[in-house]
Amino acid sequence: MPDAVSVIATKRDGHTLSSDQISWMVDAYTRGDVADEQMSALTMAILLRGMTRVEIREWTDAMIASGSRMDFSSISRPTVDKHSTGGIGDKITLPLAPLVAACGAAVPQLSGRGLGYTGGTLDKLESIPGWRADLTADEMTRLLDDPAVGAVICAAGADLAPADKKLYALRDVTGTVESIPMIAASIMSKKIAEGTGALVLDVKCGSGAFMKSLDQARELAATMVELGTDSGVDTVALVTDMSTPLGLTAGNALEVQESLDVLAGGGPADVVELTLALAREMVAAAGLDGVDPADKLRDGTAMDRWRSMIAGQGGDPAAPLPVARHTHDVVADRDGVVTRVDAMAVGIAAWRLGAGRERQGQQVQAGAGVRMHVRPGERVSAGSPVFTLHTDTPERFDGALEALTDGWAVGDDAPAASPLILDRIGT
Amino acid sequence: MPDAVSVIATKRDGHTLSSDQISWMVDAYTRGDVADEQMSALTMAILLRGMTRVEIREWTDAMIASGSRMDFSSISRPTVDKHSTGGIGDKITLPLAPLVAACGAAVPQLSGRGLGYTGGTLDKLESIPGWRADLTADEMTRLLDDPAVGAVICAAGADLAPADKKLYALRDVTGTVESIPMIAASIMSKKIAEGTGALVLDVKCGSGAFMKSLDQARELAATMVELGTDSGVDTVALVTDMSTPLGLTAGNALEVQESLDVLAGGGPADVVELTLALAREMVAAAGLDGVDPADKLRDGTAMDRWRSMIAGQGGDPAAPLPVARHTHDVVADRDGVVTRVDAMAVGIAAWRLGAGRERQGQQVQAGAGVRMHVRPGERVSAGSPVFTLHTDTPERFDGALEALTDGWAVGDDAPAASPLILDRIGT
Repeated sequence: MPDAVSVIATKRDGHTLSSDQISWMVDAYTRGDVADEQMSALTMAILLRGMTRVEIREWTDAMIASGSRMDFSSISRPTVDKHSTGGIGDKITLPLAPLVAACGAAVPQLSGRGLGYTGGTLDKLESIPGWRADLTADEMTRLLDDPAVGAVICAAGADLAPADKKLYALRDVTGTVESIPMIAASIMSKKIAEGTGALVLDVKCGSGAFMKSLDQARELAATMVELGTDSGVDTVALVTDMSTPLGLTAGNALEVQESLDVLAGGGPADVVELTLALAREMVAAAGLDGVDPADKLRDGTAMDRWRSMIAGQGGDPAAPLPVARHTHDVVADRDGVVTRVDAMAVGIAAWRLGAGRERQGQQVQAGAGVRMHVRPGERVSAGSPVFTLHTDTPERFDGALEALTDGWAVGDDAPAASPLILDRIGT
Repeated sequence: MPDAVSVIATKRDGHTLSSDQISWMVDAYTRGDVADEQMSALTMAILLRGMTRVEIREWTDAMIASGSRMDFSSISRPTVDKHSTGGIGDKITLPLAPLVAACGAAVPQLSGRGLGYTGGTLDKLESIPGWRADLTADEMTRLLDDPAVGAVICAAGADLAPADKKLYALRDVTGTVESIPMIAASIMSKKIAEGTGALVLDVKCGSGAFMKSLDQARELAATMVELGTDSGVDTVALVTDMSTPLGLTAGNALEVQESLDVLAGGGPADVVELTLALAREMVAAAGLDGVDPADKLRDGTAMDRWRSMIAGQGGDPAAPLPVARHTHDVVADRDGVVTRVDAMAVGIAAWRLGAGRERQGQQVQAGAGVRMHVRPGERVSAGSPVFTLHTDTPERFDGALEALTDGWAVGDDAPAASPLILDRIGT
């Protein structure tokens, strides 16, 4: 039988872990028979030594086996899900899930709360009065099967890949988050255990993302596409830019409002572009031919699905969204063209305003965040607002302003146009 | 102020840790403000990324600063200590300490209990009825200052480099023992904190040692000599062979008996050779010119010092040593020459017979171990004993025999003679 020290030593010395070693280690860690300090030493060795494709798949399988798998085979429509590796202003899940449901798929979107800059998808939706993230498996199936709904956005149950939950918390405090094999196994173990038939990944790349370079983002995307394909889930990935925030808002209620603008047929061009690109991939992956998601935005059926999805999870889609008690404008000090808005700077500012959390379990402010008035390439005049900061706790303005200081610039010449969608990986 | 994750990330990414990062991390870990899983991740990163000479010195200094330093400046004679990185049958400390005291130095020998193959020096001495390893600082000083004694072999106090104690226990269960910077810092933090004026290191190399190759052993030796020199301790290292056990015994009382043979002017040639080589280095490092340790073995003064050292720590040097209740002979199956006796095989056999411990705090058997009747290069006849196994618990014979199976060989031709002392590092 394997023991923790010999498993650690195998990877430390640059060898390949056996299937037995991986399944024993993940299972023993989940049960508490392998100590945190042993798993963190192994995780650091994996980060520095890497894992083969086979090791990553076996690690993913072991994390799936640590809990139970969900089963949506009773649903008559094809299931398809989307996962984003996360970025500043990334509210795409909100318009996307009802839009793809309007196209005829069932979208079982399990999402998380944020730990880091800006809240997670569930934090954003919780700014809607009455809405709840926790659904039973039966509630999920009923909403997905309802022809007037077809989408849910909810929290993963405690029994979905529990090894990943424990391991993610450990990696967070031991400097071992930034391992492509571990990130891929973490995401894909939950998505495969969730039982979706097809999966579209949005792998972010740039200053506001974990993957800073295009090469890293492509490697992560390819690793996840292989993992999904090997497990019988049709998987495709878009690699998309995250050097500039998505859209004009970063926060919770602020992002819900922007999502409503998109569902109503408006909204910032980049949010619309990415929502439609991901929707087209999901519709194709679900095997639904001849449906154009743009039509479903235009004719209002996506908005109808949003309203029934929100109502189905206890929310009041007609209730006004929370608004922060204090705002502060950041204005341009000269005429010119916005040459740069840095995603990480906006993310830190939104986080300091109260949109994100510093520790697990902390409350986020529903109304807090940053609204941008201009995007790179647009003109401003001296004295006109570039950002409006929102918070309930005005003592936070100073920290947010400091974070933004070097995060934007106005110059004479427009920056070169850069594409939002950088690559597509999959068949 | 540093935080654990940023310190870990610095080393993970291949950068040099700052002095502040090192002292903060070691101190916070000792106080319990850095968790075991964080320190083990850093330790694995150090093992795989390495440390610069400056980093190793700062890490060593931080471990020294975690406790208090001893002070032997009141002793009129020069102090000199010896440390061995450990090997099978390595009982050299036992004859060496009284021998060097007989030459005119004071020898404050802080030693450990074994966790691994065969007991540590303290386990061996505890087979002498009445002898105790725990001395107060006052008792140590009194015995070292006594012209009839001049040597102590005792346990390090809890306040000597406590960071190292905690870190060593962590490394032991996380596969991170085999890091040359960490081994060097662990050994040297204790020796520098102990306050010795000079230090001679015996760095073992071969199958029965941590360092399997000569290059590794030389690197460890050079690292420790630099650390000692940088801290004002005159330090020199011998690199010595540990592919074959030292002497003819591996065990506790068995090794005490062999040490007495050496002090009486007999004993195996290799034990005598290494004892004298290390004694000459210690005498030179202590600045005692014109004294030949061989004279002190021959004229019985070393044995006199042994008796007063043992008596000074409560032991009865005249009491008979414990003897195991059961023995079993391993005999040669042909006539020929012993071509090989593997140190690791003998070590595992002695450990399985009860001479070592599997867990901290476990009792060892005083009488258990392996006695060799022949060494590589000596002739045997079919049916004559090669090893005698000793234990109080005869159910252990099978495991010991299994460990020895491939650990020795008899052939037609004598093996090439190989030197015991492979290198010397220092000025």
